[in-house]
Amino acid sequence: MDVAEPLKGVTVLDFGQVYNGPYCGFLLAQAGARVIKIESTKGETLRGPGRPVNGTYPFATLNRGKECITLNIKKKEGQNLVRRLVEHADVLLENFAPGTLAKYGLGSDELRTINPELIYASSTGYGGSGRYKDYLGMDITLQAMTGIMSVTGQADGPPQKAGAALCDFLGGIHTYAGIVSALYERERTGIGSTVDVSMQDCVFPTLLTQLGAYFQQGEQRPRTGNRHAGLAAAPYNVYEAKDGHVAIISIREGHWRKLCEAMGEASLASDERFSSVHLRSKNMDELDAKVEKWTRRHNKAEIFSKAQAFGVICAPVQNLEDVVNDPHLHERGSLVWQKHEGVGEAVFFNTPIRFKGKNTPYLKEVASLGEHSNAILSEMLGLGKEELEVLKKEDVI
Amino acid sequence: MDVAEPLKGVTVLDFGQVYNGPYCGFLLAQAGARVIKIESTKGETLRGPGRPVNGTYPFATLNRGKECITLNIKKKEGQNLVRRLVEHADVLLENFAPGTLAKYGLGSDELRTINPELIYASSTGYGGSGRYKDYLGMDITLQAMTGIMSVTGQADGPPQKAGAALCDFLGGIHTYAGIVSALYERERTGIGSTVDVSMQDCVFPTLLTQLGAYFQQGEQRPRTGNRHAGLAAAPYNVYEAKDGHVAIISIREGHWRKLCEAMGEASLASDERFSSVHLRSKNMDELDAKVEKWTRRHNKAEIFSKAQAFGVICAPVQNLEDVVNDPHLHERGSLVWQKHEGVGEAVFFNTPIRFKGKNTPYLKEVASLGEHSNAILSEMLGLGKEELEVLKKEDVI
Repeated sequence: MDVAEPLKGVTVLDFGQVYNGPYCGFLLAQAGARVIKIESTKGETLRGPGRPVNGTYPFATLNRGKECITLNIKKKEGQNLVRRLVEHADVLLENFAPGTLAKYGLGSDELRTINPELIYASSTGYGGSGRYKDYLGMDITLQAMTGIMSVTGQADGPPQKAGAALCDFLGGIHTYAGIVSALYERERTGIGSTVDVSMQDCVFPTLLTQLGAYFQQGEQRPRTGNRHAGLAAAPYNVYEAKDGHVAIISIREGHWRKLCEAMGEASLASDERFSSVHLRSKNMDELDAKVEKWTRRHNKAEIFSKAQAFGVICAPVQNLEDVVNDPHLHERGSLVWQKHEGVGEAVFFNTPIRFKGKNTPYLKEVASLGEHSNAILSEMLGLGKEELEVLKKEDVI
Repeated sequence: MDVAEPLKGVTVLDFGQVYNGPYCGFLLAQAGARVIKIESTKGETLRGPGRPVNGTYPFATLNRGKECITLNIKKKEGQNLVRRLVEHADVLLENFAPGTLAKYGLGSDELRTINPELIYASSTGYGGSGRYKDYLGMDITLQAMTGIMSVTGQADGPPQKAGAALCDFLGGIHTYAGIVSALYERERTGIGSTVDVSMQDCVFPTLLTQLGAYFQQGEQRPRTGNRHAGLAAAPYNVYEAKDGHVAIISIREGHWRKLCEAMGEASLASDERFSSVHLRSKNMDELDAKVEKWTRRHNKAEIFSKAQAFGVICAPVQNLEDVVNDPHLHERGSLVWQKHEGVGEAVFFNTPIRFKGKNTPYLKEVASLGEHSNAILSEMLGLGKEELEVLKKEDVI
């Protein structure tokens, strides 16, 4: 099978740190771009210090397939090297604290005077304009700020974060989307753009169900646990099975009818109390009890396959052990077992941006800190062995 | 200020339904593409039936700026009209149940024989390959399947969904990213691709912290509420304030030192018990109590601005009322107040894919069902008034 590499020929300078920027760089690498990861001489936050030389699992999986170089941008000579690299790059990607690169004379306006075709992408907590533009943000504080915590959890419990680092990853994928949009536009205009992604902006749309209920009701109602955010659909919940839990959702009349059939209670579909989405929502407790009476008698896997056979939207609540071994994800090539130095044998993910009939490109194991510094600086900037040694001695690379 | 329209000139046939597909179509429209939304003659799930003519808030905000036409793809004549429209389109976008369009002879292989440049994008629960490829999925069941529920909530509570519809929106933005990647590639090859996005694939990376802990410890530990997923960083939690809650995170030594300064307890930074990330994690309960003693004495807003002034990563837990009125989001143009028929006055979001120094394009209020059917079919396919009347009478449009 062919390999999909839509961004082949694109060169990226990736100053990403932790999750947001590196996820974007990972997607670029797996779309076929050449991604040069630039770290401080100590390594970025997720690699070190105090961690194994090639980092832990999160670092190793996000930074596969990147060439790793070090540059000390606090030093004038390091800043000059960035400027020289920018002449050879299509994209610069960063998610430092706001204003970090500008402070060192490496802001988008300065760098575009060197290379007008450069696409400069910044991904921050709050974006590059507005009163909070200089504020720091990480996933958990963005979950607080954006309202996710206010709608997650039980009615009588405290605000609850989502376990997934969704702000970071929504930031990373929107930044990728901005970069590729700018690359496409550059084909027409010949000029680069500055992508300005704010994690806060990216989260807002995901609360659409709650926002709909809020604007309709004029107020925010209590959290609804695993039920529909507006309590306006049922069955819609997580139910106990013999060996865990399953989630079931029904939105349209057909979903409900099929669920009744799957439960072996076709007559329930014509029961007065459950004969419209309005009545099902009104009699939610009774209805949920009926569904759970069924799910409690079966295993998760039985319910899953039976429900799907009847056209019911259902899935087991999987734990991480289930997820990393999910046979479908492995068959599809979304997950692969790989052995990495410092991490051992683990399951690594491939890009979710997939193309029918094509494989994702193989990405090399994460490189060690500065592994490609000499090769890249010599190939791209023509630096010689002695110059490189001096730069190394002076803690520039 | 100029308006950013990187995809100007691109024509999209948008068969999106509910959130996933329509969010992708919304992003395309706000990137300057011409987006033609195609619905059944009854309207897509989120518009009707049984809802106001122009839908509720979620429908109205996701479908602004699209031209709305109806086509009954269950009828031969409707299928033919799709084939004819495809000759004039760059992109076809859909998130039907798997195989729906192929069943009507409108799969990617068939349509690319008509237009080899067509980019055909499908966004489904489980993707187009692997054993679950025909399975149905919606946000809540994908949250179950992907492990999000297993890591959200309290250690002694049941698995908990994230309030945000993150699977749907991660699906939509990855589909956008796939489409634009394929558009960029087409500039070189002249040939379209079939984008195959699976919501399940998109979620996996967001569990990176938990996966890291899982592979390190060899097992999944209990849920950690609002604390670090691996209990390997502190302070990292949601704390009570006088008037609600705030989230605070510290990862690096500097974060912790600055927090001590913000709390007016600089000496705490040199306290033996809290002198490394390892010790802070070990003495987490004691540490959290110290931080909360401080936060309880102040209002959320005071803590937020004081913390940020000291370089501490912190944010208030905002509710929806706070979020829709967030002054920063309005200053930045990410949110706008608009009045829509059937919805009234509400806050609408603009695309999170932003470009520095450029505005997002204005999007017209959502169109009513089939509002542009006659205009589009006449403009693009040259259909006359009488033909249109017959199609209408026969429930084709």
